[in-house]
Amino acid sequence: MRIDKGRLERSIEELGRIGQTPRGGLTRLALSDEDKRGRDWMVARMREAGLAVTVDQMGNIFGQRRGEAALPPVIMGSHIDSVPTGGKYDGQLGVLCALEVVRALNDGGINTRCPITLAIFTNEEGARFQPAMIASGVMAGKIALEDAYNARDKDGIRLVDELERIGYLGAEPCVARPFRAYLELHIEQGPFLEEEGLTVGVVEGIVAIAWSRLTIHGVQDHAGPTPMRVRHDALVAAAEVVGGVRRVAREIGGDLVATVGNFVVAPNIVNAIPGRVMLSIDTRDPSDATLDRARAMLEPIVRDVCAREGVRYELEHYWRVPYTPFDRDVVDTVERAAKASGARYRRIRSGAGHDAQYMAAIGPAGMVFVPSRDGRSHCEEEFTAIDDIEHGATTLLLAALDLAGRA
Amino acid sequence: MRIDKGRLERSIEELGRIGQTPRGGLTRLALSDEDKRGRDWMVARMREAGLAVTVDQMGNIFGQRRGEAALPPVIMGSHIDSVPTGGKYDGQLGVLCALEVVRALNDGGINTRCPITLAIFTNEEGARFQPAMIASGVMAGKIALEDAYNARDKDGIRLVDELERIGYLGAEPCVARPFRAYLELHIEQGPFLEEEGLTVGVVEGIVAIAWSRLTIHGVQDHAGPTPMRVRHDALVAAAEVVGGVRRVAREIGGDLVATVGNFVVAPNIVNAIPGRVMLSIDTRDPSDATLDRARAMLEPIVRDVCAREGVRYELEHYWRVPYTPFDRDVVDTVERAAKASGARYRRIRSGAGHDAQYMAAIGPAGMVFVPSRDGRSHCEEEFTAIDDIEHGATTLLLAALDLAGRA
Repeated sequence: MRIDKGRLERSIEELGRIGQTPRGGLTRLALSDEDKRGRDWMVARMREAGLAVTVDQMGNIFGQRRGEAALPPVIMGSHIDSVPTGGKYDGQLGVLCALEVVRALNDGGINTRCPITLAIFTNEEGARFQPAMIASGVMAGKIALEDAYNARDKDGIRLVDELERIGYLGAEPCVARPFRAYLELHIEQGPFLEEEGLTVGVVEGIVAIAWSRLTIHGVQDHAGPTPMRVRHDALVAAAEVVGGVRRVAREIGGDLVATVGNFVVAPNIVNAIPGRVMLSIDTRDPSDATLDRARAMLEPIVRDVCAREGVRYELEHYWRVPYTPFDRDVVDTVERAAKASGARYRRIRSGAGHDAQYMAAIGPAGMVFVPSRDGRSHCEEEFTAIDDIEHGATTLLLAALDLAGRA
Repeated sequence: MRIDKGRLERSIEELGRIGQTPRGGLTRLALSDEDKRGRDWMVARMREAGLAVTVDQMGNIFGQRRGEAALPPVIMGSHIDSVPTGGKYDGQLGVLCALEVVRALNDGGINTRCPITLAIFTNEEGARFQPAMIASGVMAGKIALEDAYNARDKDGIRLVDELERIGYLGAEPCVARPFRAYLELHIEQGPFLEEEGLTVGVVEGIVAIAWSRLTIHGVQDHAGPTPMRVRHDALVAAAEVVGGVRRVAREIGGDLVATVGNFVVAPNIVNAIPGRVMLSIDTRDPSDATLDRARAMLEPIVRDVCAREGVRYELEHYWRVPYTPFDRDVVDTVERAAKASGARYRRIRSGAGHDAQYMAAIGPAGMVFVPSRDGRSHCEEEFTAIDDIEHGATTLLLAALDLAGRA
């Protein structure tokens, strides 16, 4: 019973062609035509592997391999949507390693006591519909189905309408289901494993994440005849906030990261003083208290900057996930599996949110990380060597088998 | 012979309904469907007023009222395109006051020695196609017709294709034509006339303008697992440049204005470190030397900021218009007309570019300003009181009659 490295590599290539960018990256936004084609490809592969496929109300896809006992399943999952000009590893690698685990079990003629389920979650990235991980969030009861259905992309298109359009609006209720364990393999998306020459990360938990939205209302005016002394420039204020966010991260230090990623200026033409800027602030830290401290430092910065420029603002703290520790037994099981796989490993924390975060709220969960070259992800340069992937996939296989129990 | 204030007010309202925004402003981008409807409305009014209408290769519209002598015309012109969510006065007021001048001459049965021509220039704003004032630029021989035709809007649509689509790709060559004088009435777009309780500005010249484009290439990465120490954030660098532009304007002082108006972030999602920012820098001053000084101060700021963040950049200085003094005789004529109209007036410089700038390169030109409430323009709140407009239109009428010569 072993991972077939060549087969796994081919499936990464094949699925990676759906939505491939000219520079070898991936643009497969949630519920886009590319996502539909990726889903169709996955469903075909899952059926070939003998899985019984169902789709729930949020378009989450489940493929079940039967177990010998009437027990809750071990679920292995991730997502296949990507950010714009993202890479071929974030998300789809976890799904394809889970598929490879099923294939390896099939090849070995191995039966398990618990069923084993492969799960593909809708809109994990939050690049098209917000918030991120919306479908596992609904499943965990943290996001109302109706709110998720009414999420709109930047063109005003509703999530539910896109689910229907691409044929993935399933009938199965999207609610918490019992499971023996949830396992997710994912790229690290950070530099630590590579820097330390390791091949597998045993994920202990996911950092706390807070998302805020700042809207600054200045006075739109002509860039020529408007003297500097009378200006109320939304962009000048917003730019100072960007500097302030960086300063807060530097002052607090430690593991805190703070990012302004979304930044939209109106009317956004060369010869008009910007009248409005909307920007996002993403802060993350293992400690919820540190996020509180960052927020407490940011609020007066925003207030002072806006007062100085004479502009109004609204600051909304609209999404927050506390630190998520993974289940101790699952983490121990993953660690034993990593050791048995021959990987060089260590325990690590995830700086990114994953569906595992919501799954941890409704059952025992854990994750397996593999290294990211140069620590990079959410970009076309995203890459993980196949030998590292093999260690990760073997860890996933051994952990899943341990948790499901050999029949 | 007098301006009919009520008639003028009605035409401002009527043309202002084409492209009107819910909040009473105007969105009539160059060569859009709204621009076509505005042009059609104007052409109908020009024909009603007895003008012979022609359209040139750049879609500039000319309506000629015959003169008694075979002499070059006095041209009165402006534009009817607007910025997004702009106002009902910028551009269209100059065209409608010129129309009202023709109507007033008709009502009074007054013949002139020189013909009088009403001109409507294409794409003055530069909000849809760049550069601004593209069509008078072609006419003045400063922009190649082919370059103008190939200008693309943000969706990649070419100017020439839009000209053809809306039916305003005329046959008449767009080249310098002889004229006795060019006169343009326009809103001031600045605070000075209102602050000083004046109703008319006699424009002596237009400030020098420089447009630059800065593209910053950082490293796109995931906002979560990427520690602060390894980041190369294009937005953090760009934000510092925005602050630098403001600082340069403050340090140089005087009449210099400097604005970052266009600011585009990629990939522009909450959880990705921005990999690229493109921003515009617009600087203006009556003195060309001051613009050189601003540029000399800006370049090291950009260099240092980008070095500090470890990002690459390209800085292109892609458009520059020197200070444009208007023709002394035309300015004197406008001043006499302002006095005769009963306006409270003073000489003033324009901080905004106008088609008059290019027309001044090929013949004697001048402008008439009317006040802008709170100095505001390029916004829905743009407003000029009808009594001020009446003084401006009367000044335009008297100046045009003086220059064309009563027959």
